[in-house]
Amino acid sequence: MKARIHVFLKDGVLDPQGEAISGSLKHLGFEGVGSVRQGKLIEVELHTADAEAAHDQVKAMCDKLLANPVIENYSIELSA
Amino acid sequence: MKARIHVFLKDGVLDPQGEAISGSLKHLGFEGVGSVRQGKLIEVELHTADAEAAHDQVKAMCDKLLANPVIENYSIELSA
Repeated sequence: MKARIHVFLKDGVLDPQGEAISGSLKHLGFEGVGSVRQGKLIEVELHTADAEAAHDQVKAMCDKLLANPVIENYSIELSA
Repeated sequence: MKARIHVFLKDGVLDPQGEAISGSLKHLGFEGVGSVRQGKLIEVELHTADAEAAHDQVKAMCDKLLANPVIENYSIELSA
């Protein structure tokens, strides 16, 4: 089973990386570019077939290590 | 229109960040963790309603700035 975790800064938290990308895109001549946010994407392979247990385990991983709940939100997708 | 871009290291390219996460998860006591890969997730707001034009524009952004095609793959998702 594979878990795909999206970690994003919460709305309102300054995202300097995203702003740098936005500036570079405009500098390269791309028009019509609005706000840009950069986050992390983490893929974890799990040796279990129980989706519910896997979700609980991945949630614990996010809370303990993968995301900073003060400034970041995360979402979890599981696939077989 | 919003574009969500996933950028991942190609298979076979060493991913030290992913390995560090995998090691930390095992150290924290999570069992059954296999390989871990870390990528980037970039959300770009586009001021256009034409999905085809938006896709072409985002592809050009990836090739020019957002991904390194030598070592990275990317995928693009568009949403209204």
